[in-house]
Amino acid sequence: MALLIKNVTLVPMDGKREVVENTNIYVENGRISHIGELKDGIEVDKVIDGNNKVAMPGLINAHTHIGMSLLRNYADDFPLHEWLTQKIWPREAKLVGQDVYWGSLLSMVEMIQSGTTTFCDMYFFMDEVGKGLEESGMRGVLTRGLIEEAGKSEEKLEDTRILHKNWNGKGDGRIKVMVAPHAPYTCGPAYMEKIIELAKELDTGIHIHLSETKKEVEDSFNTYGKSPVRHVYDLGLFELPTVAAHCVHVNQEDIEILKEKNVSPVNNPTSNLKLASGFAPIDKMLKSKVNVALGTDGPSSNNNLNMFEEIHIASIINKGVNMDAVSVPAIDVLRMATINGAKALLWDEEIGSLEVGKKADIILIDMDKPHLYPMHNVISALAYSVQGSDVDTVMVDGKIIMEKREIKTLDVERIMYEADKSARDLVSR
Amino acid sequence: MALLIKNVTLVPMDGKREVVENTNIYVENGRISHIGELKDGIEVDKVIDGNNKVAMPGLINAHTHIGMSLLRNYADDFPLHEWLTQKIWPREAKLVGQDVYWGSLLSMVEMIQSGTTTFCDMYFFMDEVGKGLEESGMRGVLTRGLIEEAGKSEEKLEDTRILHKNWNGKGDGRIKVMVAPHAPYTCGPAYMEKIIELAKELDTGIHIHLSETKKEVEDSFNTYGKSPVRHVYDLGLFELPTVAAHCVHVNQEDIEILKEKNVSPVNNPTSNLKLASGFAPIDKMLKSKVNVALGTDGPSSNNNLNMFEEIHIASIINKGVNMDAVSVPAIDVLRMATINGAKALLWDEEIGSLEVGKKADIILIDMDKPHLYPMHNVISALAYSVQGSDVDTVMVDGKIIMEKREIKTLDVERIMYEADKSARDLVSR
Repeated sequence: MALLIKNVTLVPMDGKREVVENTNIYVENGRISHIGELKDGIEVDKVIDGNNKVAMPGLINAHTHIGMSLLRNYADDFPLHEWLTQKIWPREAKLVGQDVYWGSLLSMVEMIQSGTTTFCDMYFFMDEVGKGLEESGMRGVLTRGLIEEAGKSEEKLEDTRILHKNWNGKGDGRIKVMVAPHAPYTCGPAYMEKIIELAKELDTGIHIHLSETKKEVEDSFNTYGKSPVRHVYDLGLFELPTVAAHCVHVNQEDIEILKEKNVSPVNNPTSNLKLASGFAPIDKMLKSKVNVALGTDGPSSNNNLNMFEEIHIASIINKGVNMDAVSVPAIDVLRMATINGAKALLWDEEIGSLEVGKKADIILIDMDKPHLYPMHNVISALAYSVQGSDVDTVMVDGKIIMEKREIKTLDVERIMYEADKSARDLVSR
Repeated sequence: MALLIKNVTLVPMDGKREVVENTNIYVENGRISHIGELKDGIEVDKVIDGNNKVAMPGLINAHTHIGMSLLRNYADDFPLHEWLTQKIWPREAKLVGQDVYWGSLLSMVEMIQSGTTTFCDMYFFMDEVGKGLEESGMRGVLTRGLIEEAGKSEEKLEDTRILHKNWNGKGDGRIKVMVAPHAPYTCGPAYMEKIIELAKELDTGIHIHLSETKKEVEDSFNTYGKSPVRHVYDLGLFELPTVAAHCVHVNQEDIEILKEKNVSPVNNPTSNLKLASGFAPIDKMLKSKVNVALGTDGPSSNNNLNMFEEIHIASIINKGVNMDAVSVPAIDVLRMATINGAKALLWDEEIGSLEVGKKADIILIDMDKPHLYPMHNVISALAYSVQGSDVDTVMVDGKIIMEKREIKTLDVERIMYEADKSARDLVSR
């Protein structure tokens, strides 16, 4: 199976060239085999017209809880504590596997429609998310959120062991399993050490929430005499490759630790604003060469999974907070959403940029829209003007999963119906 | 001509009911004639199926410079001063009327496609914007930006007088003309007083930039010993109804003046972030009962004219800045984008809410989308999840100007072509 994207504007995110006008991309056996002049001798089964389109790497949503789409817009404009304890947790306690299956598929539809090809999920009933990944053709990291709970902590570790056995490497290698201590404040030091041992045993990475709120950091100083970052560092967590969601309230020492241990913080600007958590020091972290990725967080604290919206917000919020119009320029945010995300998920040898030899996880954006005219600067347009709904075609592993906005792999109408039914049942259970 | 929107979810923004499920809206002679049960005896020429749709007032973009779409994405990630003096102003100096005509039409296409029915524009060559308003069927306020300039100041005042004569009330009343001193730092006290006299003579309102940057406020204290708000108040500007764009750096005394004199600040969160101007104290102003409206600012400091994006950002940014997840709830931001905008533009007796007797400026939003499922709360969905591209149908004065995303009044392809051509010419002139 070979495919050609012809006469396209390429944004490779390869760290070398920002934009390549009017080029051609060949895809063979799921990988990019050639970029540049048209080539004789490659027989292609399909030609996609790239005129007025931008080809860029599929976006990587490095931190989310996709099953939470069932609770989208269910309880907004509440204080965080009330939101969690009175609204979200009581409902989540009543979730069953089918709910998470349909909620996750609904989220995958939304992600595909807005240009995301890979996501890193932390939730429960993760087998259901795995099934969804196999069906949708997306790429993803499954992590079962671990919260210490008397009598159940060991069982949860075993869940992760089984999850890893059943799903790691599945879906032709599109599925990966990592280990997910929910947060330092929900996993005590002894449990955290067991989690670290498990990750070492499975030879995989860590996915954790870290320094999301001011209160979390204050509590950590009160309990351990140090910041959450320093605390898990001292426990040895960062000996493993770590994806650390949020890192909103981090100090200079924390940033140095993140850099030294190659930890990847995931910025979730919408969620951090909406839940009033604060502003992560992205400019400072990027300037310290920390590998910052981008995520939407779950669709019930966002309230969507649209990475172009997240790119847009990340690109303007840092300018406002730092009172510096040059802070975190467009290309940096696009990096956060692509190659940095790939690095965070230990996948940068395969995805995150469009280069010969890499997997063909490609999105095509239709630039022939009034709100994208005139086209003075493609990189600016991608960060400041493009909407999720401008994504035209989505490819993962060289397989087209959306073409001209039509999803090829999933029954969208059925998913909307079933997810809606699950959600209605859930809130009345 | 009578029209019926059947079985629709109504978000009237009338200050009484937030959401009315499954109702019907009759439109006769450009106005809403009945809301509620189906009625015998009204012969309708057209029935629109409102199933899975929300009907709400057309959005009001209360501060913009739409001709600047020609410079969209032309010069981003530059410090404000360099951006203005080296990039934007030299290009604007070379604009001709035709450029502004095509750029404005391009912007009107974008606004219609994202649910805006009314805008308040400050630019030059305003006859061209007037022509565009007549053609597009949109509603708008024309204001010619006045900057004091030796030898030209009087002529500019006369321009406004002529603009008012030629355009005020035109387009079946859809066009209004106000007087626009650009800012207190570009119009000295004597010129400002002449401007005030002119607005009194024309019996119309004022559109001004006010307290946008910290520097502007510091300079005002240095020059006049008082804030920009207090300075123009002392000059008597607020004796006229005033739309004051930005009001980012306002103190408690300023807010009290804005309230006392019924001034309407326009929040432009994207532009204020992108240009690193700062955060307007929206929560405080709303709690002080100030009539805060919402705008996008020009498309070259945003870089789009999508009011749903602006609603989304306004709804989350205040929560983050105030570290309070309850700050500026969804319904308040929707008010800013509708009825408050109407009040600002002295149009609230005609538009800004869907009520019997008001003009039928109505938008229908297609809620049958994966990213809007499930529908737990319509108000939350409108603020946090709906995208501009979900707008299905747009009506102004009871006339359909977009139906099923197809614009009925304008030749979109030609406008894109001509605006693109103008933009390319402009940057090489």
